[in-house]
Amino acid sequence: MKRITIIKPDDFHIHLRDGAILQSSLADCAPYFARVMVMPNIIPPVASVKTMVSYEKQIRKASDEITPLMTFKLLKSLSGDEIHAMKDGGAIAGKLYPAGSTTNSSDGIKSWKEIRELLHVMSDIGLVLSIHGEDPSVFSLDREKEFIPQILEIAKEFPRLKIVFEHLSSKDGIEAVEKGPENLVGTITVQHLLLTLDDIIGGGLDPHNFCKPVLKRPEDRDYIQKTVLCGNRKFFFGSDSAPHLINNKERAQGSAGCYTSPVALPLLVQFFDKNNKLDLLENFVSRYGADFYGLKVNDEKITLVQKNWIVPEEYSGIKPIFSGKEIKWNIE
Amino acid sequence: MKRITIIKPDDFHIHLRDGAILQSSLADCAPYFARVMVMPNIIPPVASVKTMVSYEKQIRKASDEITPLMTFKLLKSLSGDEIHAMKDGGAIAGKLYPAGSTTNSSDGIKSWKEIRELLHVMSDIGLVLSIHGEDPSVFSLDREKEFIPQILEIAKEFPRLKIVFEHLSSKDGIEAVEKGPENLVGTITVQHLLLTLDDIIGGGLDPHNFCKPVLKRPEDRDYIQKTVLCGNRKFFFGSDSAPHLINNKERAQGSAGCYTSPVALPLLVQFFDKNNKLDLLENFVSRYGADFYGLKVNDEKITLVQKNWIVPEEYSGIKPIFSGKEIKWNIE
Repeated sequence: MKRITIIKPDDFHIHLRDGAILQSSLADCAPYFARVMVMPNIIPPVASVKTMVSYEKQIRKASDEITPLMTFKLLKSLSGDEIHAMKDGGAIAGKLYPAGSTTNSSDGIKSWKEIRELLHVMSDIGLVLSIHGEDPSVFSLDREKEFIPQILEIAKEFPRLKIVFEHLSSKDGIEAVEKGPENLVGTITVQHLLLTLDDIIGGGLDPHNFCKPVLKRPEDRDYIQKTVLCGNRKFFFGSDSAPHLINNKERAQGSAGCYTSPVALPLLVQFFDKNNKLDLLENFVSRYGADFYGLKVNDEKITLVQKNWIVPEEYSGIKPIFSGKEIKWNIE
Repeated sequence: MKRITIIKPDDFHIHLRDGAILQSSLADCAPYFARVMVMPNIIPPVASVKTMVSYEKQIRKASDEITPLMTFKLLKSLSGDEIHAMKDGGAIAGKLYPAGSTTNSSDGIKSWKEIRELLHVMSDIGLVLSIHGEDPSVFSLDREKEFIPQILEIAKEFPRLKIVFEHLSSKDGIEAVEKGPENLVGTITVQHLLLTLDDIIGGGLDPHNFCKPVLKRPEDRDYIQKTVLCGNRKFFFGSDSAPHLINNKERAQGSAGCYTSPVALPLLVQFFDKNNKLDLLENFVSRYGADFYGLKVNDEKITLVQKNWIVPEEYSGIKPIFSGKEIKWNIE
C-alpha cells in the first residue's frame, strides 16, 4: 500500500463560524490540520482584541486538538492602537474584505486607501495583510482580475507589508502573484485547484460547489494546477472551507462557500500522487505557509495511505464537496 | 396611462410538461399568448404521431383558451414514414436535442448526420427543424458557440429546410444567425434578453434563474438586446418557459429551466418601452415567428398598460423569474 508521511499540515484560511457549528467544524479538520488560520467574518465581526480573544477562547474550549491562528477584520473604524493591541493579543493577520464581496462583508472596505494608516501600522509591526481580492462591482468572472491593480498598489506602497492574495481562482490572479513583488503571495483552495464553473452550472445546479470567488474556466483551473505542480513557494494551501448548513445552500439566494475540511487533504494527496509529484505535497500544505507567516513548522507528523473511501453525504448537516464520490487516499 | 394594443402574441418555444403541472402552465400563459409551440421532451418523449396526438388532446382538454402548436423529438430510431405521419398529424416542427444537452435529453442525437435522412424528409415536406444548439461535451459557456459549425453544416446541406437556433444566449450565436443563410433564424427568451450569469452566481446562488443554455456574460446580453432592438425579422420570441417545482430547483443537482410564462410579456413590453421601441414589440412577439412558420397571425388583440405590479413569489408551487420584483407593465 502506497503511503507518505509528512509534517502535519496547516490550513491558512478557514471559516469555523461559531455556536453549534464551531465544534463540528473543528472536529472535521483536527485529523488533518495542526493549525488553522481563522477568518474573522462572523457576526459581529472579529474587529477588536476583546472579541478576538473571546473567539479564540471559544475555539480552544471547543477543541484542544487544533491550534487556532487568529485574524481580525479590517474596518475603516479601527484605530492604530487597536491594531497594536490585536498584535499583542496574538493576531497574525488582518483581513481586508471589499464591501459586498462575500459572506458577511457589507461592512467591508470600499477602497484600500480608507485604511492606509492601518496598513502602515501593520507593516511596521509585522502583521500580515490577508485580502479577499475581488471587485464586487464587476461581472463575477472578472472580479478577481479587476482587483489586481489594487493589490499591486498596496504591495508597492508597502514593500515590507506581507500580503496574501487569498483563494486564487484565475490565471490572471496567479500570474499577478508570480510576477508580483516578493511581499505578495497567494493561497489556493482545493476546489479552485480541482473544479471549474461547470461543477456548479454544467449539469444540474450544484449549490455545494458554489463559492466566492466563483469557480472559473477550465483554462484557469489548469493554470492553477500547473502552478501548484511547479512547487513555487509563493503559493500555499488555504482551504476557505466554510460550513453552511444544507438548507442554507439548497435554497433561493443560497450561501457561498464550499465545505472541504474533511476532504481537502485526501484530495490534495490524490492530486499530487496522480501527477507524480508527491514530493511537493509537504511544501504546499506544511512548509511554505508557515515560512511565509514566520512560524515554525509543526512538530507532529501525519501519515497518508492509498485506500479508497466514499465521501459521506454530510457531516453534521453540512455537505462537503465530492460527497458520494470516491477518493483514493486518506489518513492512516 | 400609457397603453399599447397589439396582435395577441405566440410563444414559439414552451415546456408545458404533463400531469398536474400542465393545467397551471396553460393557465399562466393563456392571458398572454394565443398559441404556444410545445416542446416534446416529456417522458416518454413525443416521438410518434400517437403520442403527439394524445399529448395534444391532453393539452386541449386542460385549456380551451390556448392553441398548442405541436412538435416531436427527433430520435435516431424514427422513420421517414413516421415523420410524414407527424406532419399529417399536425406537427409544425421536429426538435433536435444533442444528447445530454438539457432536461430529458439523454436519448438525444450525437451527430446530426445520424438523422440525415429524416432531415431530407422534413425539408421535402416543409417541417421546421428546431435545434437546442449546444455541444454538451465542452465547457458550459462555450457550448452554444461550439455548436455553430454543426448548425451551419445542416443549413448548407438543406437550403430549403427551415431551421431555428433556439434560445440564443451568446453574441456568437446571434451573429451566426445574422450572418447565416436565409433559412436560419433564432428565438430569444426573456431571461437571455434581460439577465446574465451574475443573476445566478453573482450574489447568493439563484436556482430560479438557472437554465440551459446558461445565462452568459453582460456583453452577450447586451448584444442580444441590441439585436432585438434592431427589429431583424430573423429573431422572434420563444420563452423556453419551464415549470419546475420549487423543490426540484432548490436542491443539489437542481433542474435547469426558468419559469417565465406569467412575466415574459410584461417584461418584454417594459424592455421595449424603456428603449423607446414599443413599435417593434408586435413584430417580435406576434408577427415574425408566425411569418417564419407560415402561419397566419392571430386575429385576437391584447392591450397592455403601464401599471406597477409585484411578481408573486410563486404560481402553483413554481417560482417565476423576477419573483418579488416590480414590473411596470401588464395586460389591461
